[in-house]
Amino acid sequence: DKKQNEKEVKLWGGRFEESVTDTVEKFSESISYDKALYKQDIKQSKAHATMLAKKELMTASDRDAILQGLDEIEKCIERGEFVWRTDREDVHMNIEAALTDLIGEPAKKLHTARSRNDQVVTDLRLWCRDAIDKILLCIKRLQIALVNLAKVNEGLIVPGYTHLQRAQPVLLQHLLLSYVEQLERDAGRLADCRSRLNFCPLGACALAGTGLPIDRFMTSDALGFTAPMRNSIDAVSDRDFVLEFLSANSIVAVHLSRLGEEWVLWASEEFGFLTPSDAVSTGSSIMPQKKNPDPMELVRGKSARVVGDLVTLLVLCKGLPQAYNRDLQEDKEPLFDSVKTIIGMLEVSTEFAQNITFNCERIQRALPAGHLDATTVADYLVNKNIPFRTSHDIVGRSVALCVSKKCELKDLSLDELKSLSPVFEQDVYEYLGVENSVKKFRSYGSTGSECVREQLGYWANKLEIDR
Amino acid sequence: DKKQNEKEVKLWGGRFEESVTDTVEKFSESISYDKALYKQDIKQSKAHATMLAKKELMTASDRDAILQGLDEIEKCIERGEFVWRTDREDVHMNIEAALTDLIGEPAKKLHTARSRNDQVVTDLRLWCRDAIDKILLCIKRLQIALVNLAKVNEGLIVPGYTHLQRAQPVLLQHLLLSYVEQLERDAGRLADCRSRLNFCPLGACALAGTGLPIDRFMTSDALGFTAPMRNSIDAVSDRDFVLEFLSANSIVAVHLSRLGEEWVLWASEEFGFLTPSDAVSTGSSIMPQKKNPDPMELVRGKSARVVGDLVTLLVLCKGLPQAYNRDLQEDKEPLFDSVKTIIGMLEVSTEFAQNITFNCERIQRALPAGHLDATTVADYLVNKNIPFRTSHDIVGRSVALCVSKKCELKDLSLDELKSLSPVFEQDVYEYLGVENSVKKFRSYGSTGSECVREQLGYWANKLEIDR
Amino acid sequence: DKKQNEKEVKLWGGRFEESVTDTVEKFSESISYDKALYKQDIKQSKAHATMLAKKELMTASDRDAILQGLDEIEKCIERGEFVWRTDREDVHMNIEAALTDLIGEPAKKLHTARSRNDQVVTDLRLWCRDAIDKILLCIKRLQIALVNLAKVNEGLIVPGYTHLQRAQPVLLQHLLLSYVEQLERDAGRLADCRSRLNFCPLGACALAGTGLPIDRFMTSDALGFTAPMRNSIDAVSDRDFVLEFLSANSIVAVHLSRLGEEWVLWASEEFGFLTPSDAVSTGSSIMPQKKNPDPMELVRGKSARVVGDLVTLLVLCKGLPQAYNRDLQEDKEPLFDSVKTIIGMLEVSTEFAQNITFNCERIQRALPAGHLDATTVADYLVNKNIPFRTSHDIVGRSVALCVSKKCELKDLSLDELKSLSPVFEQDVYEYLGVENSVKKFRSYGSTGSECVREQLGYWANKLEIDR
Amino acid sequence: DKKQNEKEVKLWGGRFEESVTDTVEKFSESISYDKALYKQDIKQSKAHATMLAKKELMTASDRDAILQGLDEIEKCIERGEFVWRTDREDVHMNIEAALTDLIGEPAKKLHTARSRNDQVVTDLRLWCRDAIDKILLCIKRLQIALVNLAKVNEGLIVPGYTHLQRAQPVLLQHLLLSYVEQLERDAGRLADCRSRLNFCPLGACALAGTGLPIDRFMTSDALGFTAPMRNSIDAVSDRDFVLEFLSANSIVAVHLSRLGEEWVLWASEEFGFLTPSDAVSTGSSIMPQKKNPDPMELVRGKSARVVGDLVTLLVLCKGLPQAYNRDLQEDKEPLFDSVKTIIGMLEVSTEFAQNITFNCERIQRALPAGHLDATTVADYLVNKNIPFRTSHDIVGRSVALCVSKKCELKDLSLDELKSLSPVFEQDVYEYLGVENSVKKFRSYGSTGSECVREQLGYWANKLEIDR
Repeated sequence: DKKQNEKEVKLWGGRFEESVTDTVEKFSESISYDKALYKQDIKQSKAHATMLAKKELMTASDRDAILQGLDEIEKCIERGEFVWRTDREDVHMNIEAALTDLIGEPAKKLHTARSRNDQVVTDLRLWCRDAIDKILLCIKRLQIALVNLAKVNEGLIVPGYTHLQRAQPVLLQHLLLSYVEQLERDAGRLADCRSRLNFCPLGACALAGTGLPIDRFMTSDALGFTAPMRNSIDAVSDRDFVLEFLSANSIVAVHLSRLGEEWVLWASEEFGFLTPSDAVSTGSSIMPQKKNPDPMELVRGKSARVVGDLVTLLVLCKGLPQAYNRDLQEDKEPLFDSVKTIIGMLEVSTEFAQNITFNCERIQRALPAGHLDATTVADYLVNKNIPFRTSHDIVGRSVALCVSKKCELKDLSLDELKSLSPVFEQDVYEYLGVENSVKKFRSYGSTGSECVREQLGYWANKLEIDR
Repeated sequence: DKKQNEKEVKLWGGRFEESVTDTVEKFSESISYDKALYKQDIKQSKAHATMLAKKELMTASDRDAILQGLDEIEKCIERGEFVWRTDREDVHMNIEAALTDLIGEPAKKLHTARSRNDQVVTDLRLWCRDAIDKILLCIKRLQIALVNLAKVNEGLIVPGYTHLQRAQPVLLQHLLLSYVEQLERDAGRLADCRSRLNFCPLGACALAGTGLPIDRFMTSDALGFTAPMRNSIDAVSDRDFVLEFLSANSIVAVHLSRLGEEWVLWASEEFGFLTPSDAVSTGSSIMPQKKNPDPMELVRGKSARVVGDLVTLLVLCKGLPQAYNRDLQEDKEPLFDSVKTIIGMLEVSTEFAQNITFNCERIQRALPAGHLDATTVADYLVNKNIPFRTSHDIVGRSVALCVSKKCELKDLSLDELKSLSPVFEQDVYEYLGVENSVKKFRSYGSTGSECVREQLGYWANKLEIDR
Repeated sequence: DKKQNEKEVKLWGGRFEESVTDTVEKFSESISYDKALYKQDIKQSKAHATMLAKKELMTASDRDAILQGLDEIEKCIERGEFVWRTDREDVHMNIEAALTDLIGEPAKKLHTARSRNDQVVTDLRLWCRDAIDKILLCIKRLQIALVNLAKVNEGLIVPGYTHLQRAQPVLLQHLLLSYVEQLERDAGRLADCRSRLNFCPLGACALAGTGLPIDRFMTSDALGFTAPMRNSIDAVSDRDFVLEFLSANSIVAVHLSRLGEEWVLWASEEFGFLTPSDAVSTGSSIMPQKKNPDPMELVRGKSARVVGDLVTLLVLCKGLPQAYNRDLQEDKEPLFDSVKTIIGMLEVSTEFAQNITFNCERIQRALPAGHLDATTVADYLVNKNIPFRTSHDIVGRSVALCVSKKCELKDLSLDELKSLSPVFEQDVYEYLGVENSVKKFRSYGSTGSECVREQLGYWANKLEIDR
Repeated sequence: DKKQNEKEVKLWGGRFEESVTDTVEKFSESISYDKALYKQDIKQSKAHATMLAKKELMTASDRDAILQGLDEIEKCIERGEFVWRTDREDVHMNIEAALTDLIGEPAKKLHTARSRNDQVVTDLRLWCRDAIDKILLCIKRLQIALVNLAKVNEGLIVPGYTHLQRAQPVLLQHLLLSYVEQLERDAGRLADCRSRLNFCPLGACALAGTGLPIDRFMTSDALGFTAPMRNSIDAVSDRDFVLEFLSANSIVAVHLSRLGEEWVLWASEEFGFLTPSDAVSTGSSIMPQKKNPDPMELVRGKSARVVGDLVTLLVLCKGLPQAYNRDLQEDKEPLFDSVKTIIGMLEVSTEFAQNITFNCERIQRALPAGHLDATTVADYLVNKNIPFRTSHDIVGRSVALCVSKKCELKDLSLDELKSLSPVFEQDVYEYLGVENSVKKFRSYGSTGSECVREQLGYWANKLEIDR
């Protein structure tokens, strides 16, 4: 039992001579944020009361009074009329005390074979499960937006970068699908986390279980858990499911920060590859042509707090002895903040993806600058049986020639090319230029047009787009 | 200028065809938390208007209208009657727009030679300065509480631990003063941070300064800064002062987490060295003798979020190009949270220190168990010209003898001691037992009674206790 | 291609006029640590050469020369005779250049349809897979050690703690199994991570794939991957698999830090519940009875670096644009450190578990102090149809009576009990005392003897102990 | 005393029946990294022996033997001939045992009135002091390189960015000096840290001080400390000086990561503002014009490990009880890594700054695009007594006109301007264009040519350049 309620002596039987000081009360309260768990807490109490009645630990009429009372309280909360009292400490005590105010005696039986220790962690697991479902939906929406963006930009070639230096031409579709792939793994991590946390701690009580003849399988089923947790001490003391959830969120956040960085770069004057619509950008009141990609800057920035939330929880849990320690109260705010932030980041990225235009002309103008077809020529030479390291060298010298002549590879004459290697033939011109270059890619997973079309089909199908 | 306000087209001259979406607006808003800066923002605007009038960039009557209008707005905010509008984005726009509503035309001159970029960072530096002053006061109060606790426990010897194993006897006073020392360095770090951040960015404008004939020294003085910052780009883009502040807070938090750990241990049944009063502990409604030291568990736990806040800011700032990026909007919530948490931790630790009793009897019963006087005997032997490593070995064998006889060192007869080393004389008994042992310590900074008395005097004087 | 090797101009065709400075070379090198990947790099090159020959991109005799050359190099490395050269930058270049030194021309064909970008990440995924397998084994060994420790301590009751205050009696076996449960989830996280990372990036080349007719499914199969990765940009640029791995390690580390804290506490004089054997503790040369539980302090301490490694990688990846950036070179040291540390922590915890004795007598002496049977009495009353909140109150008053009489609950007479509630009957004495109390627990997952026996059987079976 | 050495029983008097296991020994050893402290350890021992002799705790001839022996050992280490033994655990034991091997009996007196607890922390403070001095020098060198870079680029105007969107024209010099300012605060933080840590823990012994008549002021002086620390428990248990140092390093790292990001951006094809020389860039063997700014990518990337090191130490120290815990052994590697990394980052940034060329032509071509002179026109209007918010609006409309006409502000005719506001006069053309715009800036700290010249003079003087 976490704490004795001082200010409401009659109900909780305080035997202390003094109340805690206001400073301590304010420092210790959790109701200002844990009320977010009300829905889960009420759901749990209903399942618990139903089980208690089934096991004859309360009467059917007590149960009915409780179920009805909880329904009323839930409606009251949702109407915004419930008065949350700090002197009733937390969401559990607030609801139980309100129930007692409402229905009297039967409410006193509700906490049978339950402690706040198992109660809070049951609420938390239920809440995480719901939160993961919401995030999974947001991820899917962003994937759909990216795939749709790919679909409307068929054939658009952009520079592919390494070291932020232009390296090879790639289809924009291919680049966009790379983010879809990353999000898919993010979804996989969250789904794994959901499976692993979906076990029921209810009935672990304070830490040791109970001697009352409860049925933990029944409450577990009623609440949609896979099974009750096997060990009561583990059930109340571990928060690894929150750590795993916040880790998964942190990886999503890192992915989105990279998308944010890329789109902020692309929206700059210097790149000029994309323009956000008014609906997702902010302007300068002084420069009307300005379109600040603020939302993606904030996506990048807010990734920091998701990482910070994870660190908070890791620091929190480090070195705590078993079982419940009051420190664990601090698990909730980082969790809530992480979830709220990730959902915001995903939603805003989705809207951004739905509201950008790629500037084909500007991009096409940029393409010739990087000799992006150089590696394609190396492949050409390898096909002619030149060892790769030698091909590589020949292409290097070819580009050097272009640099000195200020031209592109495709502008070199066959004689010039032959002077660098006799194996060059007329057919090399089918490999030169970014369009040819992209066409030539053919390995599985490559940016070759055919490969990308297949991948796009894969994702449209998987994400149930246009069906 | 950070962003154009869409929804209030007439005032900010929106030229965008669409408003930003609700998702983006909700994701981007900062008014829900940056209103905490209202006092600093108003103070700044007053200093700015006064300077503008002095430099003839506005008339005296415009200035007076502004100063009076800002006074009214401040009172309105403090009465809780000010309506913060999300469509006016942030604290700066809310106050400026409200001023325009209130006094009309003159308000339009207030933003002369200022941008939100320098405005927000000026507010933030002022806010940090105030926050540091508050924390410094809280630190001093905790130091005083610890010194007072030391004063009422004169002469109480407790086991000193290494590896959580008993090692040597120390005066409780000495242990308490070790925390006072740590807090003093914490205060030093915060004071250094305060000095370093106390330079005025106002007048840096968007990032390049201004061509208007402003006097940055005048506003700097009026706001109590040491001097204006020397470089306008640096002024708007760096947040190192927040990083330094949050680092200093993190070290305070680590110190307090260690105090928390120690007092939680000491309050356990197994140690039983201290009992918190009712005013700072929570009980179990079932076990009336229980006194959970919850506040110190929470102090230990909340240290995690202070660390998390620092990490958030480090991650946030990493890799941002110069100068202002929207990401920086995210600097405020970790800052505010860190300050609020540290103040709470300090206040609660202070109240805890004012409300604990050390259980002398229990402690005294515990003292004999650890052969805590062993190293004192080694000193005795060194004084008799035995090389230290040899002394060490003799004492080791002496304790081994005690262990086999289940007695303490002081219970060994002189013959027994002499059998271990002939240099033992009758005077060794003046070194045995924890009381003797403590008396013998004499090096500067040691736990010797005389040394500790001096140190206690030093701190009572420095902290102005009893004067 | 990551970088041109300056110092060995002939091979890599440097066209730069100057070499990089020594400072830059020293700062940029990775060979001092990435040589740890040699086994994976050689394995990969063999699979790659075999595929190239199959697809007629090299001859069978070239392939044979390469396979044989790589075998020789591997042996040379394992004999410690390989000379790693900093001017050959990294493990890939060192091995390829050594192969060229050894077999000449055919070596130049090895890098066909491969880039260092896909090469390094293929090595890294193979390395992680191997590392996870090692960690999974270490986890299983620790689980076995804990189950064995439980088996030899049948029936031993210890205080169960909340807030580090004694709360209820639990079987030591139950407490030990709570750690086994946590480790099982840790293993689950690592296994999920292993499945998710086990896709093959080889053939993604620099970032866009290749135009050469390679067979990525063949290399993927040969290297034991599930399938080739679907998107070449994703393949070379993402390090989410390392983030996931380090997150999983961090959660293991937090679990072990808690075990460390608990055993350090239990080894203290004040608790005195366990004694480590000489083989896993350190002593004081001055106090022979001292047994410092150093290894578990270090387990607790080293958890910090595992968390730090994760943070390093999160900060590293945040805000990087697609695709390969040189920053990513920094992914390896935190990964290697995390794996080495976790393995050390698991091994040492296992040895510690194999080398501790629980001090039954000391524990039994401690048990009466906490009124640990109080909640059992509450269950008794609930069974007699007293509402839980009322039962709770009655037990509270019963314990208060004990406190005033300085006795235990079982020492109260039936009359005294009846004066608190008339429903107390003679049978209450079957519920009093920690042994009775433990016997009465019966809910699934509780500390009841029967439940714990079943759980122990479950784990012995699952971990294949005694079969 | 940290740990008893098992394997060298005769010297350290092990009484344990078994040695620790190899796993534990390997896990616990620190000699592989703490040997980095040898110089400080020897220096300390010399000061300590000298003091012991002065206080007649050893003879002059013992002292001389010790001093001479330590000299020999130091030379032996520096010649690389010293054999570090893992079974002698750490640097302290290795040196003391080697001294005993070398000079015999007198060596046994060296550890008088000292423990490994105060010894290690004294070494560590000395080491940090030296490290800070090195970093301060590196910072100064980078500042000089930046100022020199500014000097050779007089008059070069570049776009100033907010949101990575062009905002106002700034002098490159001004931008470079903004980094100099940040580094100056970094130096200030490190200097403050150095002052605060420069107090001597020697003589605190295990944790309680000593009864021997040592003179702590004498050793403190001899080692260059300000004074001995006032509290022996504080002296051995706190690592806040390392936390402060790593925090200061983290802020340096964040600053450098931002410089890295900026220069990587500027080196991209799209920006094209700077070209690194061959000496500090890497190329592609295939694209000879490529100059990858790898060193600055690594500077950005390595900032992550500096942050990770800080987090490791914060996590390490959180929640440890007073005084020495074995966990603290883990303070060294993050410290050493942080220092090594920061020094590398500073050195490489310095070399990079010494080896880049700004591409004036490319930059000048870029300047017109952003209407960077817009805010200067707003200042012009304010000077003509138009309220700022109105000026702002007029300029907005002026730029809108330019956008529709695809021209720059300076290309608008006076009639066109007058149609937007009648206050425009011929003199407005002195404000238009980036050169005029930069000239008009005049506020202190602004990018105005005069202001920047003064600031450059200030720094050249302060950094003693050209004198």
